[in-house]
Amino acid sequence: MPTAKLYLEDLYAGQRFTTGQYPMDEKRIKEFAAEFDPQPFHLDEAAGVESIFEGLAASGWHTAAVTMKLLVESEMSIAGGLVGVAGEISWPKPTRPGDILQVESEVLEIVPSRSKPQRGIAKIRNTTVNQRGEVVQVFTASVLVYRRNSG
Amino acid sequence: MPTAKLYLEDLYAGQRFTTGQYPMDEKRIKEFAAEFDPQPFHLDEAAGVESIFEGLAASGWHTAAVTMKLLVESEMSIAGGLVGVAGEISWPKPTRPGDILQVESEVLEIVPSRSKPQRGIAKIRNTTVNQRGEVVQVFTASVLVYRRNSG
Repeated sequence: MPTAKLYLEDLYAGQRFTTGQYPMDEKRIKEFAAEFDPQPFHLDEAAGVESIFEGLAASGWHTAAVTMKLLVESEMSIAGGLVGVAGEISWPKPTRPGDILQVESEVLEIVPSRSKPQRGIAKIRNTTVNQRGEVVQVFTASVLVYRRNSG
Repeated sequence: MPTAKLYLEDLYAGQRFTTGQYPMDEKRIKEFAAEFDPQPFHLDEAAGVESIFEGLAASGWHTAAVTMKLLVESEMSIAGGLVGVAGEISWPKPTRPGDILQVESEVLEIVPSRSKPQRGIAKIRNTTVNQRGEVVQVFTASVLVYRRNSG
């Protein structure tokens, strides 16, 4: 478990972090879809095969939620918590049952706040890959980060 | 339940859709956070009050997942399913226990595919509001839409 907390001064463009791994369970994929994204291709293999996904696919929001779980428990431990205010998200490939997901993060840019000198925004690209190295999600987030001793 | 399915020819810039409503339950907010976004301000009232959220807040990914649920069951019933390939997301205000969420969608633009004439992308802005009309999420999605009789 990470102990040192990261402040704005600790982050820099090009900095990289890697998370642990998360296996995508078929039963949980279907349960998540039933609750939040009840479309046939997320619920049923045969319907998945007939769809654009060419097989059962997890909801993109399930992939996003698992990505967050991996980030929260990663070494990228931001002081005050991991709070995204906005971001761009894409899903280049579907997540499948049995996939093992992992997230690779890279700090792209640090933007100090003009109005609030005790904080800034870190733009961080979080790339979620499966066990074959295929990219299933890219989430480029604007993350709120405090300066050290910002009170 | 919606019956008529929407094809690319049925969508136009300025078109609007509204979803049903979804009440955010405190127990489910905490369960979702425990599974996918285990940070103190999503799990515990006292920790929420001490945080930037100034109270218990749902994970942004919970708000996103509920938004999808509302859209999937709405009148915006896209033929072949509601499949977002990418989008921009922001969370201007936190979602709270007891909030009742609803989504207002507006088609911004229709972009025919150059390489695949039987389909196109609809850019749709989905604004999630609470019962006070406050915006808790804006998700501007690029949605895959087929032409009628595209086979």
